[in-house]
Formats: sequence, C-alpha cells, structure tokens
Amino acid sequence: MHFTSEQRLDDGVVEREFTLGEIPGTLWTPESAASAPLVLMAHNNGLPKADPRLVARARYTAARGYAVATIDAAGCGDRPRSAADEQARADLRRAMQAGEPVDEIFESFIGPMVEKAVPDWRTTLDALLALPGIDGPVGYSGGWTALGIRLAVVEPRIAAAGFFAGGYVPRAQREEARQVTVPLLFLLQWDDEGNPRQRALDLFDAFGSEEKTLHANLGGHTGTPWFELEDGCRFLDRHLK
Amino acid sequence: MHFTSEQRLDDGVVEREFTLGEIPGTLWTPESAASAPLVLMAHNNGLPKADPRLVARARYTAARGYAVATIDAAGCGDRPRSAADEQARADLRRAMQAGEPVDEIFESFIGPMVEKAVPDWRTTLDALLALPGIDGPVGYSGGWTALGIRLAVVEPRIAAAGFFAGGYVPRAQREEARQVTVPLLFLLQWDDEGNPRQRALDLFDAFGSEEKTLHANLGGHTGTPWFELEDGCRFLDRHLK
Repeated sequence: MHFTSEQRLDDGVVEREFTLGEIPGTLWTPESAASAPLVLMAHNNGLPKADPRLVARARYTAARGYAVATIDAAGCGDRPRSAADEQARADLRRAMQAGEPVDEIFESFIGPMVEKAVPDWRTTLDALLALPGIDGPVGYSGGWTALGIRLAVVEPRIAAAGFFAGGYVPRAQREEARQVTVPLLFLLQWDDEGNPRQRALDLFDAFGSEEKTLHANLGGHTGTPWFELEDGCRFLDRHLK
Repeated sequence: MHFTSEQRLDDGVVEREFTLGEIPGTLWTPESAASAPLVLMAHNNGLPKADPRLVARARYTAARGYAVATIDAAGCGDRPRSAADEQARADLRRAMQAGEPVDEIFESFIGPMVEKAVPDWRTTLDALLALPGIDGPVGYSGGWTALGIRLAVVEPRIAAAGFFAGGYVPRAQREEARQVTVPLLFLLQWDDEGNPRQRALDLFDAFGSEEKTLHANLGGHTGTPWFELEDGCRFLDRHLK
C-alpha cells in the first residue's frame, strides 16, 4: 500500500489517497485517535470513490472516531470497464429511454461487477488491518448493498453492516441475504422511485441476522435526513467500539 | 391538580402522583432542570398507568430532561368500566379462545375508549402546562397509537409524536392518520404476533407528516431493543428542545 497524498481537513480528519497494486483508494482517519475501528464504505454499483455523497459520509464517520476506507474496485469508478459492461450500460440507457424493463440488464452487469469487486475489497482489508492504528472488528457501511451482502457472507472480519436500500441487488445477493448474520442497520427511502419498496422490505425480511433494524424515511432516493448519519455512527458504536 | 405523593428516585427523577378531579396521574420530572418540555405517555388500550414498561420508559425519558406525565383516563386502568366495555372484553376472551376473528370486537371497545380518553388527556395537558417548570411544545410518546393519533389531530400543542405499532388502531384513527402532520417516529416490531405487519406499514404510509421515520426491529411485541429508548429521546430532542 502506497500513500500518494495526505491532507489534514478542518474537521480533524486526515485524508490519504493510496494505491494497492491496481487499486486506487482513499483512507480517512481521525487525527486525534491513536487507533480506530475500520469501516469499509462503498458507493452503489461502482460509482467513483470521489462521489461527494460518499466523501461526506466518510468524513463524518471518521470525525466520529473511525478509520474509513473506500476504493475503486475492479470495473468501478474510473477503472477500465469490460466490453460486456459497456454493452450492458448502452442497453440500459436504450431501455430506460424506451421505458422498457431494466431488471435483466441491471442483473447482467451488476452481478458480475459485485463478483469482481469482492477480491479487491478483501485485498484492501488485509492491507488496511496491517497498518498501525487501524483495528478490527470491521464495519461495512454504505450505499452498495449487494457488495456489502457478499462481503458479509465471505468475510468473517466484518462484524456489523449498515446498508442503504437504494440500488439494484442481484438475485445472487438477494438469495444469500439469509446467510448474513451480523447485526445490521438497513436504511430505506420510502418513496425511492428507482427502488421498489416491497422488494426492499422483502430483502430486510430475508437477512439472517438476529439483530436487524430498518430505518425508513419519507422521501426519494437522495432525501435521507441528516440524522441518519448520526444514527449510523451510533449503530457502529454499539458494535465496533 | 393535587399532588398526593412525592418520591425522589435514584436516577435523579422526582415522581409525583396527582389527582385532577376524577383523573389519577403520575408526573416524572428531572430533579436538576429548572424547566423541561412536556411529554405525554400513554399505555396501549387503557392498560394501567402503573404498568412497569410504561414506568420504565417514563423514568428514562425524565432522566433525559423531560417532564413526563401519564394518567388513567376515563375507562382506563383501574377506573370504572362501562357495561358495554365489560361485555366487549368478555366477547374478546371468548372469541380468542375459540380462535375467531377479533377485529370487530376490538373496534367496539377501543374505538369508544379513545373517544372518552381524549378529553381527560386535554384537561391534564392544560393543568400540567400551568405548572411552573413545565414547557411547551409538547410531545406524545408511547404505546397507545390510536390515542396519539386522535390527540395529534385535535391538539395543536402537540409538536412531535412517537408511536408504537403494537395494538389495535380503530378505523376512525386509521382514517384520520392522514391529518397527522407533526414529525413522527413510528416503532414496529417486525414479528409482533398480534399486529399484522402490513397493517402497520399501511398506517405508517398513511400519516400526513412530511417528516416521518419508521424504526422496525426483529422480534415480537415486547422485544423492542433498549437502544430504541435512546433513539426515541433523540427524536424528541430534535423537536422539543
């Protein structure tokens, strides 16, 4: 892991860019803490790690005492896309313009994208936990629910997960949701146009966790109220600190 | 309002019993605060004000800086019941033992019980707000959702409401839920045997509030996790402090 830049931000957070082989990432840590539990934070469906909403959540969480990391995994962000992904994205645009169903198209590129992203996240997790001042147990928090489900199933170091029910979750992850057993907080926007409410409620129902909490708020996809950021940190506090 | 007893509890809360005409009540206030916002707390469907779960919630909330009041309204707790109520309760027992539908029986005694309770709660509210050290705006928090809906509709002094989706809500209150416009926190136990989940989700959907949040947790009727008490106080903090 090579750090390529370091910046002290005015909220007492240090932001460092890194590379790990082909993987570019960002790590936010609280300046004041000698050590901090690690939180992995991914943005939905391969959106770039520099997305302002992700960065805002990461900085808030780091200021609350966590080491927060994100990466552009294989096929995500600005990393090269496969020809199949490019085709799927073109199909998706065409289908959406024509008002046709898009589930199968989402399935054809989000499914493989999750599979390819997981090894990069696990490699990153290994490298981060080898750094001084970064502790397990590890939390997952963020928009990419499908990736979070997959990681929670295969990665025993993940001890708690916060999911946002706001994007396409492939069939494979909907089916393996019952294998997720860590405590979880599931965030739903009640009127999220692109995310059928019943499908989100069914997914919440499917998780195998004995402690699972749903927070639903009125409003559309990007309308999550600010206090959910604080609630999300308090959820992590209960399980990681 | 006549105070009939006063007790200093070990959590820094003063517990006072009072009577107001025929209405018996309890008021919990934080010893340390010169003044505190008022929270009305009612237990579901006329259960007595001394119910240990209600008392525990009330003391916790008072220790967090609120004046918390509960009463046995007309027909509730140990107060005299009408012959119609007694008949309905007998019908209910018989129907439950026989495994018959109970909705209409609930309707026949919970509906009138809500109507009769509301004037006692409003009288109590007047008297409490006349006391030194008790402030508006007022919150409603507690198990009796139907009463809370009715109060929120008729009582402009109520500025925020926390409801527990765990008991029978009469048709009249399900219909007037759209007239509730104050911020609300709606608590649901995902596997509450006596409370159909879909009906609770429909009720959450129906509220007219622009800010409304659903918290759902795994488990049965009495399994609400402890952290929801804290979340409930933080909800009140956002709107009453």
